[in-house]
Amino acid sequence: MNDREHGTHFDPRFDSNGLVTAVVSDRAGALLMVAHMNAEAIAATQASGEATFWSRSRARLWKKGETSGNVLRVVEMRVDCDQDALWLIVDPAGPACHTGATSCFYRRVSGDTLDPIG
Amino acid sequence: MNDREHGTHFDPRFDSNGLVTAVVSDRAGALLMVAHMNAEAIAATQASGEATFWSRSRARLWKKGETSGNVLRVVEMRVDCDQDALWLIVDPAGPACHTGATSCFYRRVSGDTLDPIG
Repeated sequence: MNDREHGTHFDPRFDSNGLVTAVVSDRAGALLMVAHMNAEAIAATQASGEATFWSRSRARLWKKGETSGNVLRVVEMRVDCDQDALWLIVDPAGPACHTGATSCFYRRVSGDTLDPIG
Repeated sequence: MNDREHGTHFDPRFDSNGLVTAVVSDRAGALLMVAHMNAEAIAATQASGEATFWSRSRARLWKKGETSGNVLRVVEMRVDCDQDALWLIVDPAGPACHTGATSCFYRRVSGDTLDPIG
């Protein structure tokens, strides 16, 4: 019996950079984006109810929508079996992708070609 | 204009370990698992139509269900804006989690406590 897998204590398994993977989808099940969270980002998300990540490129805490206004209101947060990934189910205030697309996953892969989604 | 973001060429942005994040959900939008893929795993998945990952713990190619039979038949593969994450929409042949749960995300996070999902 592995406590991290079967226990009731939230004990994120951070990688060597102090991060876990955060997967964000809306209530309808559409995947919106994938990002990373450190302990501080998790705490900020839980305190504010709005998704906050760790930006690896900018090396700072990053509240999604802090400039665009397109915040992600967290409906529910789940954790996976080995606690190295989080699933955030959110109500997005606007497009989740910095490109303006509703979701970052706006292209389908066919072989080595990408096709826009519907 | 960034080709990786706006182009039609599938050009995964592998990390320093040669990996991208692979997010797997079913057609209903339930998140099943999060894993990693290298170039070989992507090629194997595309060739077989069944999800194949790179196991970091075992340092080898890992076809999901290779021992359990619980393969993940890929309905569609999408890529995100900067091409460092893949979304696999699948038909699972059985429970996706090694614990026997349908999804690896079987616990909700409430503060520092985990509650089983309904």
